[in-house]
Amino acid sequence: MQEIATLAEKVRSGQTRAVARAISLVENRHPDRRQLIGELYRHAGGARVIGITGPPGAGKSTLVDRLARALRERNLTVGILAIDPTSPFSGGALLGDRVRMQKLYTDSGIFIRSMATRGAMGGLAPATHDAIDILDAAGFDWILVETVGVGQDEVDVVRSVDSVLLVSVPGLGDDIQAIKAGIMEIADVFVVNKADRQGVDRTVRDLEVMLAMATDLEWTPGIVKCVASRGEGIEDVLEAVEAHRQWANESGILGRRRKEQLRLRVENLLKEQVLRRADEVCNLNREIESAWEQRLDPYEIATRIFERIES
Amino acid sequence: MQEIATLAEKVRSGQTRAVARAISLVENRHPDRRQLIGELYRHAGGARVIGITGPPGAGKSTLVDRLARALRERNLTVGILAIDPTSPFSGGALLGDRVRMQKLYTDSGIFIRSMATRGAMGGLAPATHDAIDILDAAGFDWILVETVGVGQDEVDVVRSVDSVLLVSVPGLGDDIQAIKAGIMEIADVFVVNKADRQGVDRTVRDLEVMLAMATDLEWTPGIVKCVASRGEGIEDVLEAVEAHRQWANESGILGRRRKEQLRLRVENLLKEQVLRRADEVCNLNREIESAWEQRLDPYEIATRIFERIES
Repeated sequence: MQEIATLAEKVRSGQTRAVARAISLVENRHPDRRQLIGELYRHAGGARVIGITGPPGAGKSTLVDRLARALRERNLTVGILAIDPTSPFSGGALLGDRVRMQKLYTDSGIFIRSMATRGAMGGLAPATHDAIDILDAAGFDWILVETVGVGQDEVDVVRSVDSVLLVSVPGLGDDIQAIKAGIMEIADVFVVNKADRQGVDRTVRDLEVMLAMATDLEWTPGIVKCVASRGEGIEDVLEAVEAHRQWANESGILGRRRKEQLRLRVENLLKEQVLRRADEVCNLNREIESAWEQRLDPYEIATRIFERIES
Repeated sequence: MQEIATLAEKVRSGQTRAVARAISLVENRHPDRRQLIGELYRHAGGARVIGITGPPGAGKSTLVDRLARALRERNLTVGILAIDPTSPFSGGALLGDRVRMQKLYTDSGIFIRSMATRGAMGGLAPATHDAIDILDAAGFDWILVETVGVGQDEVDVVRSVDSVLLVSVPGLGDDIQAIKAGIMEIADVFVVNKADRQGVDRTVRDLEVMLAMATDLEWTPGIVKCVASRGEGIEDVLEAVEAHRQWANESGILGRRRKEQLRLRVENLLKEQVLRRADEVCNLNREIESAWEQRLDPYEIATRIFERIES
C-alpha cells in the first residue's frame, strides 16, 4: 500500500513521528508491518545495536541515559528501546519514568521509546527485532536496547543485538545473581554499576570466578566498574563495548551472530504465522471447546489442526 | 510402540522410576512424548495443581518443602516440579540444592524433580505441562510447581496450574516488586514469607494498595503471612489455597482456566510443530544462509517457508 511506502520513506529520512508510528505498528503486530519491514530491511544493518540487561535496581536506565549522552558528545545519534514488562498493576508506573525521561530529550539526535509486552501471541521479541530495523533504517548510529535480564523472552530480545552489557551492582547477593542464570552466557561486557558502594570488589571477584569456571568461552567478557549516576566510568564502558565489537568483527562472530538473529526472527515469525493460520482454518476457541468435551489430548488437537493447515 | 505403552502403565501405577523416565522424555522433547501423553492424558485431571512463584530469595523452596510436609501429614501424596533456569555458569549450583533436598525424601509419597530450560525451541512451558500430566496420571493428589516469577516463559508455566501462589518477602523494595509485573495479575494467593522480618506490615500494605488499585478482579487474592523456615503459617497458606479452589470451582473459573490451559498447550505444540516441519521442508540453516546472501527480509523468508509447509 502507498501509505506504508510513504511511512517507510519518512522513517528513512529520520522523521521522529514516522519512526514512532512505525514502531507502534510493529508493536501492535499490525498486518502492514510485513510491507513496512520489507521496505526498510535492506536499508538497515548499519547501526551498532547494544543490549543493556540486568536485574531491577541495577541502574540500567541511568547507564543507558549516560551512554546516550556520551555518544551524543561524539556527534553520534542514538535510538533507545526500553523493554517494559506490563501489568494491570504496575505497568503504568514502570513506563512513567521513561515518559518523564523522554521529556528531557529535546535533542532530535536521541529517540527514546518504551515497548511493552501486550500479551501478544508472539511475545516481545518479534516486535523488538522489527523496531530495531526501523531505528536502524532511520539512520540512528547506535541503538540501545534496555531490558530486565530474566526469562526466555528477554534472552530472545537481547539475542537480537551485537553486544550485550550485563549490569550488576554490589550487594544484591547470590539470590539475585541466580536470576541472571539464563542470561549470563550471552554477556559480552559485565558492567558493575554503583561501584562506589561497599562490596564492589567482591562483586568483581565473583564475576571473575564465574568467568574462570566457564569453559569454551570464545570471548572473555570485560568487567568494567562505573557509577552511572555520576557519569563515572562511562568512557570505560564504551571502550569495553568497542573492544568486543572489534573482536566480533575480526573473528567473524558478528556476521555469525547476525545470521543467528535472522534465524531467530524467522522462527518467531513462523510461530506467529502458524497461530494465525490455525485461527483461519478453524475457530481455535471453538476447536478447543469441542476437543475439551471429547477429552482429546493436546497433541491430538495440535496434530489435527496442523493437518488442516497443511492440506 | 509397546515400550511407551508399558512405560505409561508403570507411570499410572505410580512407579517412581517410570515417572522419572517419563518426565525425562518430555523434558527432552523426545518424539515418543506424543504417544506417552496420549496414553496418560485421559487419566489426568484429578490432581490439585498449585504454582509457587516469586523473586529469588523469597524462600519458595522452603515454602514448597513445608507445604509438602503438611500435605503428607494429611495423607496426601505430593509431586513437586522445580523449574530451574539453566546456565553454563550457574546451572549446576541452582540444581544442587534440589538434588540435596531430594535425598531428604525417602517418603515415596513425595516425588521431587527439577526441570531445566535446555534452550529447547518450544521453551519450558510445553515440557512442564506434560510433566504435570505425568504426575497427575501417576495419582499424586497435589502437584506443586515452583518457578522464579519472571518472564513470559514462567508466566506460561504458572498458567498451567489451578491456583498461583505469589511469594514475597519484606524489604525487597520497589525495584524487586517491579520484576513481578508480568506475574502479579495471575496471583490467586499472596504469601508474605519471612514475616518475622522488619517491614512485613509495609509489604502487606503495599500488596493491599496494589489490589485496591486493580480494577476488574474476578477474585481478590488473599494475603497470608508465614515464616516457612519455622513452619509458621503453613496451615493459613493451605487454607487460602482452599478458599481460592472453592471459589474457582463454584464460579466455574476452574473449568474455564483448564480450557485456557489446553488452548495454551495446543498453541505451544503448534509452534513446536511448525519449526520441526520447517526443518523438514527445507534445511533451515541452509535456507537462512542463502536468504542472508540475498538480503531477504525475515517476513519474506518466513512466508516462503510457510508456503512450502502448506503446499
